[in-house]
Amino acid sequence: MPELRLNLITREWVIIATERAKRPGDFHKAKAPRTLPEHLDTCPFCPGNESQTPEERFRLEGKDGWKIRVVDNKYPALSNIGEKKRVRMDNRRLVSGVGVHDVIIESPLHNTSPALMDLKDVKDMISIYRNRFLDAYNDPRVEHVIIFRNHGERAGTSLEHPHSQLIATPVVPVQFRDRIEAALHYFDDTGSCLMCDLAKSELKEGTRVINDTEHFVTFIPYAALSPFHTWIFPKRHSASFSRVTEEEIKDLAFHLKTLLAKLYNGIGDPDYNYVIRSSRPKDSENEYCHWYMSVVPRITMTAGFEMGSGMYINTCLPEECAEYLRSVAISKEPAGA
Amino acid sequence: MPELRLNLITREWVIIATERAKRPGDFHKAKAPRTLPEHLDTCPFCPGNESQTPEERFRLEGKDGWKIRVVDNKYPALSNIGEKKRVRMDNRRLVSGVGVHDVIIESPLHNTSPALMDLKDVKDMISIYRNRFLDAYNDPRVEHVIIFRNHGERAGTSLEHPHSQLIATPVVPVQFRDRIEAALHYFDDTGSCLMCDLAKSELKEGTRVINDTEHFVTFIPYAALSPFHTWIFPKRHSASFSRVTEEEIKDLAFHLKTLLAKLYNGIGDPDYNYVIRSSRPKDSENEYCHWYMSVVPRITMTAGFEMGSGMYINTCLPEECAEYLRSVAISKEPAGA
Repeated sequence: MPELRLNLITREWVIIATERAKRPGDFHKAKAPRTLPEHLDTCPFCPGNESQTPEERFRLEGKDGWKIRVVDNKYPALSNIGEKKRVRMDNRRLVSGVGVHDVIIESPLHNTSPALMDLKDVKDMISIYRNRFLDAYNDPRVEHVIIFRNHGERAGTSLEHPHSQLIATPVVPVQFRDRIEAALHYFDDTGSCLMCDLAKSELKEGTRVINDTEHFVTFIPYAALSPFHTWIFPKRHSASFSRVTEEEIKDLAFHLKTLLAKLYNGIGDPDYNYVIRSSRPKDSENEYCHWYMSVVPRITMTAGFEMGSGMYINTCLPEECAEYLRSVAISKEPAGA
Repeated sequence: MPELRLNLITREWVIIATERAKRPGDFHKAKAPRTLPEHLDTCPFCPGNESQTPEERFRLEGKDGWKIRVVDNKYPALSNIGEKKRVRMDNRRLVSGVGVHDVIIESPLHNTSPALMDLKDVKDMISIYRNRFLDAYNDPRVEHVIIFRNHGERAGTSLEHPHSQLIATPVVPVQFRDRIEAALHYFDDTGSCLMCDLAKSELKEGTRVINDTEHFVTFIPYAALSPFHTWIFPKRHSASFSRVTEEEIKDLAFHLKTLLAKLYNGIGDPDYNYVIRSSRPKDSENEYCHWYMSVVPRITMTAGFEMGSGMYINTCLPEECAEYLRSVAISKEPAGA
């Protein structure tokens, strides 16, 4: 029989549809992994084409030119120029679309991704995430910052060159407010941080854990919304990503690269999104909220039921997905484990 | 400059990204509309293959055989056999996956859809939606019912034969709870139903209205989450779809068919989902909630930003989408207008 599981952070129910169940290995793509050239003359993010990108905000230099560049998005979702205004008229609520929209070009190589990059380079990328995260909040118009990565067409990107993005919005999304509310109720009820407790439960139970080190734990959530939906939780209680330390970043890079390399090998370079869910720096001291990373491979579709209910149907048991990913070998074991 | 607009029902902000703006007509698919045969021997929903579907729950007879059939889903998300049990252990919440999963086969013809069907047949389909909606709530294990339609692969269906679905769940989705909460706060603040007031505002302003008759209004919401996202609102205050009258169903069929025919002609038979959002029959008397239909063409992708924030980026002005749809001619003007 199928079962419904509750995500305590989002309060979303997930149907684990065992009637439709697939084995984790069934998701391995039959087709060969994408093969891309190391350099593409027509790619605006490849070295030599730096003039094709808008204003550069940051550059990390390597031995033979830049290693990572942060530039304005050419087609920004929000404008970095202009005043923040609010309008309330009848039933309309309007805020001017000001904010930040960064593109983080992760490598000069056209054909790499964090699954394949050296651990050192993933660490540099995450350090830049943190720095840009802090910078974005220095803009007084900004109320919330999302860092995310779209990998492949099904994950919503048309640009092949490896890149992440940062969008800083002039409002707080209700999705974030709802998570905070759930965490606050849990704190009032128990005196503990919900995410700290979830991580402890997962470590104790063990069946959904993929990677466990000093500072982080990678696991498939009990109520994973789709096959291989994975969370990377810091073990130290911390509400804001802005407070991550250099040592933690090194460990986080190991977790992120290991997970993405296992997905690359285990299900054939799937399209995926990842995001960093975090409170703003001002709220970094709060006891009830906890930042984390969420990785969602885009290997199934959502349809009218998900749209109508907000519930998901997951055709793969979280415990089996975790077992499968634990067993996947990664060609080059990341150093610094 | 882009702008952010608030959906007062869901409290979600939408970025209307004018920098990326597209004209509504740009979404017209270049490719020819799908061409399917009227009958397919291998299709389990085509006449002659009735034995390939699980138990039949209802059949509407026509002159030459059935017109509409309701059958159990062959791969149900939820099982209709078994006891409803709840488990609470540590941080895990589990409910057994019992409920209802109907398939409503809308026509014996393999190659039709509500955009092309006769108005009378769309009306029959909606009558059956209402009857099955009421039936599903007679099951004491059921707490919430979603009726939805997935049209095309991008909308999550692989079966071409025209069909809708009904899923009855043993829990109430948080998405529904959140809408009720917003509507309740609005009622406490104003003494009115939020959806009644939204419909009145839309009718007064007029720029986003597509179709206006005695019982319903079709419009693009002020904070539409994607191009051509459309709502069909009953004008009479009513919390539950279960209370829709025969006369209203006739008018709703006209609105639904007109909208889908305009999308079919105007943007080239797009993939889409629609859902009916409604309270349960028991709550049909409540003053603050209001049932409605939501139609979402699947012509853009969501990515990491939407996943991380719950906010959407809409590249097309709602007012321009409405203007465009108003101007689209439909080959055969539905009768009964």
